[in-house]
Amino acid sequence: MNKKISSALISVFYKDGLESLVKELHNNGVTIYSTGGTQNYIQNLGIGVVPVEELTTYPSILGGRVKTLHPSVFGGILGRRDNEKDLEEMKEFNIPVIDLVIVDLYPFQETVAQTTEEKLIIEKIDIGGPSMIRAAAKNFSDVTVLASKDDYQELIDILQQQNGETRLDQRRNFAAKAFSIVADYDIAINNYFHQDAPLHVIGSGKQSPLRYGENPHQHAVFFGDLSACFDQLHGKEISYNNLVDIDAAIELIKEFADTTFAIIKHTNVCGIASRDSVFDSWKAALAGDPESAFGGVLVCNKEIDATTADAISEIFFEVLIAPSFSEAALEKLRSKKNRILLQLKNTNTTSNIYKNAVNGTLQQQKDKGNFEKWDEVGSRTSSDVERKDLEFANLVCKHLKSNAIALVKNQQLVGKGCGQTSRIDALRHAIEKAKQFHFDLNGAVMASDAFFPFNDCVQLGHEAGITAFIQPGGSIRDKDSIEYCKANNLAMVMTGMRHFRH
Amino acid sequence: MNKKISSALISVFYKDGLESLVKELHNNGVTIYSTGGTQNYIQNLGIGVVPVEELTTYPSILGGRVKTLHPSVFGGILGRRDNEKDLEEMKEFNIPVIDLVIVDLYPFQETVAQTTEEKLIIEKIDIGGPSMIRAAAKNFSDVTVLASKDDYQELIDILQQQNGETRLDQRRNFAAKAFSIVADYDIAINNYFHQDAPLHVIGSGKQSPLRYGENPHQHAVFFGDLSACFDQLHGKEISYNNLVDIDAAIELIKEFADTTFAIIKHTNVCGIASRDSVFDSWKAALAGDPESAFGGVLVCNKEIDATTADAISEIFFEVLIAPSFSEAALEKLRSKKNRILLQLKNTNTTSNIYKNAVNGTLQQQKDKGNFEKWDEVGSRTSSDVERKDLEFANLVCKHLKSNAIALVKNQQLVGKGCGQTSRIDALRHAIEKAKQFHFDLNGAVMASDAFFPFNDCVQLGHEAGITAFIQPGGSIRDKDSIEYCKANNLAMVMTGMRHFRH
Repeated sequence: MNKKISSALISVFYKDGLESLVKELHNNGVTIYSTGGTQNYIQNLGIGVVPVEELTTYPSILGGRVKTLHPSVFGGILGRRDNEKDLEEMKEFNIPVIDLVIVDLYPFQETVAQTTEEKLIIEKIDIGGPSMIRAAAKNFSDVTVLASKDDYQELIDILQQQNGETRLDQRRNFAAKAFSIVADYDIAINNYFHQDAPLHVIGSGKQSPLRYGENPHQHAVFFGDLSACFDQLHGKEISYNNLVDIDAAIELIKEFADTTFAIIKHTNVCGIASRDSVFDSWKAALAGDPESAFGGVLVCNKEIDATTADAISEIFFEVLIAPSFSEAALEKLRSKKNRILLQLKNTNTTSNIYKNAVNGTLQQQKDKGNFEKWDEVGSRTSSDVERKDLEFANLVCKHLKSNAIALVKNQQLVGKGCGQTSRIDALRHAIEKAKQFHFDLNGAVMASDAFFPFNDCVQLGHEAGITAFIQPGGSIRDKDSIEYCKANNLAMVMTGMRHFRH
Repeated sequence: MNKKISSALISVFYKDGLESLVKELHNNGVTIYSTGGTQNYIQNLGIGVVPVEELTTYPSILGGRVKTLHPSVFGGILGRRDNEKDLEEMKEFNIPVIDLVIVDLYPFQETVAQTTEEKLIIEKIDIGGPSMIRAAAKNFSDVTVLASKDDYQELIDILQQQNGETRLDQRRNFAAKAFSIVADYDIAINNYFHQDAPLHVIGSGKQSPLRYGENPHQHAVFFGDLSACFDQLHGKEISYNNLVDIDAAIELIKEFADTTFAIIKHTNVCGIASRDSVFDSWKAALAGDPESAFGGVLVCNKEIDATTADAISEIFFEVLIAPSFSEAALEKLRSKKNRILLQLKNTNTTSNIYKNAVNGTLQQQKDKGNFEKWDEVGSRTSSDVERKDLEFANLVCKHLKSNAIALVKNQQLVGKGCGQTSRIDALRHAIEKAKQFHFDLNGAVMASDAFFPFNDCVQLGHEAGITAFIQPGGSIRDKDSIEYCKANNLAMVMTGMRHFRH
């Protein structure tokens, strides 16, 4: 049902954007009620205002803590226009009809971000604001509510197009937005009082439906704003599985400072190398496991040039992520319609990991660690070359699903085992992959995401040619592995930091 | 700072539990202000009440929509007792000091659950209640607020122990709880108005801090109530990684109706078998990969008897889950202090999966599917024995991380490959595992979680002795695999349903 707006209550903390809306209301002959700073602002525009005090016959008291919490205001907002008794009571108590409520909230979140002084923060818990907004939103069948300046233009357009009237669906929509703003506000206050266990809300802000989830029979949605992280320059719609792999790719690549290229499949890195040029990095990453690279997600931390673009184009891939692309590279890469090309703008990702388990949700910090210590416990200290490869291998291993083993030689992943239920199997697979692609493991290094439960891993590694190991340590049988290293001229570093990943 | 409670405003929808608190207040000489039904309830206890109308000199109007929204009430709650000017104004306007606010909220959530009639739902959006609760919580430095009957007893205890006074930290704690109740309420209202995109909140309800996350350097919390799902009968504190594996174990075991035992490591099933008895199921499950079983999470869908308990006790495991345990079994299993024994009560788990990706969160439905069709596309229809094993293998494969291959013979997992970046690698691993533990693969069946991109998988499987395959199909080269089956007397079933899992 259309409702003419004849009166408005306006009380806002932020005045920007208000002028054109107030003028539009004034032009429509709307009576404006207001308080304090907003009242002054509107009067300074040369527009007449009725002070709320006049309406309530009650002043603003307690340093502004109580201004609008009065039956004349709330009766004017909450009175049902189709209810005879309500209308009679409003008349009897001199309660004016309020058709439009424009109220925003004290900047609680902003204050929390700026100070830790509780007195200042508490004073920014708005009481009157949410009460008026909630009252107006509740009575959307008669009342229009704007709880954010983001909605001013929409109302101006409506008033102009509909002769000063609003439709029921429009009022319900404004109410829905208002309740959403109040919910966000109350979540923020709750979280201030529960800093050890804040509410984490999925679903506020931007959301994008996905075609489907991990599989076509599973519905899926993404909550968040990907454009803050990257721009899609080309290609088809990003899928659920793409996003999972893109996440893995970004988390991985941001660990490397040298020019590095990596290939991700099913969230695991199956090829990665650091070289002087992007082209050489790509070649070396691909050589690590050309079989797995098919259909992968590729990521590089430097600009993609035309030569590399040509080389990449020889294989089928789903996604390519880089901080920039030369114009010539972009032109070549765009030759295939479906390829997703992403320009990485920002590697700031979520700091907590959420995972549902049983009938609830697990929350944990991301694994931002690397190593806690660097204890050389083998027969000798690792050489400079080994040390560089050990650091590289340790980082790669951290990004493989557990149990994981990474074999690295000359800043190139030459074999990996991952997602295994036994550690020795992960190592067997890593050695097999290296052999399959004809890598010489002599002088290669091995990283393990968790400790070696027995000395079988160092033994098998040594037999394959590996000369240095990196692992957290912490097994009751660490000594067995250390003794094996000591007896065989092998270096071994204990980091004190496990990197399980599931 | 301690504050004596001299006056209270009580206005509640639910009266249960109120009697003893009101009597305690009365015994402490507290002046009680109240409205409507609550006022009658207290008067019927023979306790004197001051009607709020007397305080506001204003009646309840608009069918109760406006009762307490008055400066006398909000001034009484919000006035700062350490502010001279506030105190003067309160005196001037005859505003009584209100030290305690006991207010609950209209049952909005309950009404939404019971009806779809919008008029009824809207009427249950409480305006006065949240306003008073929020005002009292804001002024916790002077005021005590109870927004739920769950807190009545706590206040009674405090009043008795502290001579009718509350401490600042106690008032702040009540305020924190009150803000949490209001946030939940506003989230529920928001979600009613945004049914297509509700807020999903992690962190409301029960929460348990965990010792750490996947690794010791990651903080972690679990949100949820595990006791609704299982009872812990014995053993140490459940860890983050335990929970992830317990989740995998429950999701897996609920797929099987026959007597079945399974062993989980790093979320993957490394042994599973269905047999006539629990003991035989355990033996067969363990035989599938005795190497991986070490330190695993064990799950069974039938009661654990004493014989099985003895057999299980021979290996080291972290967790054992079953619907029940015989007394003798429980006694034996309790012999080791750390073993976690869980009695499964309910396999209802969350219906959506949440996973963070990039700078947001992915939400998807769980994979509750199995097969969409049963298309026999090989050279012959699968035999009854093969069919039973194919169904078993397909279920097991669904619970392995992708890429995954499961080899099954006689309702026993005899080889698996999982978490691989190439499908052929997963198959190679599965065959190796079967060989390692001396299984005869002649007559075994193979399940793949996604289609075969080439015919190499069926060829390798056939060479190992496998006679029947199950896979979703959908590759542009399905024909190659089908032709290979047709030429080699192999059965192949296409299900039309992929089971990627990451």
